[in-house]
Amino acid sequence: MIEIVRTVAEMRARRAAWRRQGLSVGLVPTMGYLHEGHASLIETAAATDDRVIVSVYVNERQFGPGEDLERYPRDIERDLAVCERAGADILFNPESAEMYAADHSTTVHMAGITDELCGRSRPGHFDGVCLVVSKLFNIAEPDRAYFGQKDAQQLLVIRRMVRDLNFNIELIGCPTVREPDGLAKSSRNAYLSDDERSAAPILHRALACGLTLCEQGCRDASRVRRAVSDALAEEPLAQVEYVEVVSTDSVQPVERIDAEVLCAIAVRIGGTRLIDNFMFDPER
Amino acid sequence: MIEIVRTVAEMRARRAAWRRQGLSVGLVPTMGYLHEGHASLIETAAATDDRVIVSVYVNERQFGPGEDLERYPRDIERDLAVCERAGADILFNPESAEMYAADHSTTVHMAGITDELCGRSRPGHFDGVCLVVSKLFNIAEPDRAYFGQKDAQQLLVIRRMVRDLNFNIELIGCPTVREPDGLAKSSRNAYLSDDERSAAPILHRALACGLTLCEQGCRDASRVRRAVSDALAEEPLAQVEYVEVVSTDSVQPVERIDAEVLCAIAVRIGGTRLIDNFMFDPER
Repeated sequence: MIEIVRTVAEMRARRAAWRRQGLSVGLVPTMGYLHEGHASLIETAAATDDRVIVSVYVNERQFGPGEDLERYPRDIERDLAVCERAGADILFNPESAEMYAADHSTTVHMAGITDELCGRSRPGHFDGVCLVVSKLFNIAEPDRAYFGQKDAQQLLVIRRMVRDLNFNIELIGCPTVREPDGLAKSSRNAYLSDDERSAAPILHRALACGLTLCEQGCRDASRVRRAVSDALAEEPLAQVEYVEVVSTDSVQPVERIDAEVLCAIAVRIGGTRLIDNFMFDPER
Repeated sequence: MIEIVRTVAEMRARRAAWRRQGLSVGLVPTMGYLHEGHASLIETAAATDDRVIVSVYVNERQFGPGEDLERYPRDIERDLAVCERAGADILFNPESAEMYAADHSTTVHMAGITDELCGRSRPGHFDGVCLVVSKLFNIAEPDRAYFGQKDAQQLLVIRRMVRDLNFNIELIGCPTVREPDGLAKSSRNAYLSDDERSAAPILHRALACGLTLCEQGCRDASRVRRAVSDALAEEPLAQVEYVEVVSTDSVQPVERIDAEVLCAIAVRIGGTRLIDNFMFDPER
């Protein structure tokens, strides 16, 4: 039976009891409004670890001014049902005051690999992510943490943070779950009107053009970028924020694809900002 | 029998074995050149925890340009002997390359309480301390960590960091150990010439004047500061960097002593920068 935990102290007590029993723990950090993508993370965690904690916390510190913090969708009852069905043991759902003291003054900053892609239009976003994920790691002390590959830059940033700060945690990146028409599952899909929803699969179709080029042997990153951009341009409702091909190691743009790359895009469909990506390794 | 461990992987393996045996672990983070002050921390840890890790690492990231990183005293053989005598089980002594990857890019920053006292003349110092202590906490995963009250601001900063980042670690502040003439034990005392060594106890004597005032009921912080400054002025070799009375909570200067305060000083004796302090709580 799944249980809702709202305080750090109670979460620690549950964790300590599991440790005494020698049970392994998986953590799935989320901002809630859970969809099949989250469910897939939870199911993977439940298949790997003895106990699974899902955190649901809309972390104010990773939203910039003018972003969608206030209207970010919330439905804790539905989240609880998704968690239970997918095999979670605890839904950790703290209040903001439980997470951040009024005089909270510690920040975590990552240089370099947070400057590109989403970092360019969302300054401070990844610092907010690093901070809350550090806190959740220390609160839940998981053996493994599960993140979706849809948020590819986030996964690379957290991987770097785990290395740099020596978190004793194994990171598991899980495949993006998609709608039948290819649209990546996202809590923000809820913002889309019917017309926008019909237009949104263009992200996936455009990326597929780029991936096909790579698989056909193209190693020229600008050709890949152009193919994706051209495909996106065919959808009048799509406003491109970026189309980039970056190294998965440094998250810096590359010219030649001679090691693993991330091809990532951010596109506004109406007022809704959507992201998607593929990874390609020429040596596999 | 004490053991030297040089890699994170080996440290983790030792820690995991102790965890399986249900043993508690204490961590004493140091920069080496251990003196009786460190020995006292290690003894306290050994009396409290089942196993004690002493880290010896001269963390380049907490030294500023022009500071004494290069000439900071080192003597790992002596450190090993001190650790063994005081009851440590592991001396963790990593190389710099083991601690910081060439493309290390994560930093920990604390605002506010790092701006005063030593933070003013050593910008970035406490960020370097927070970073290395975060790493050591994650590498050693101690139940308790032991710090000297001589580095009072450091202890307050780490206490704040533990709270803000939710480290599941109990911090133990241990009393300053002094030479018979009152000089606080410090690895940097090794820099002092004979004349400077004779002058150095002025720090302790000056602080004693301030503490006496407090104990006699004085609640005017500027009077306390003046008493300490006047006493320091009597020693020609002493160049005062700061004499401050701050809240132990916010590390901001106070006018009235109506809650616990830290009276902290930094003084150059010749080329050597020494610090010392006392805490006073009017309600105790």
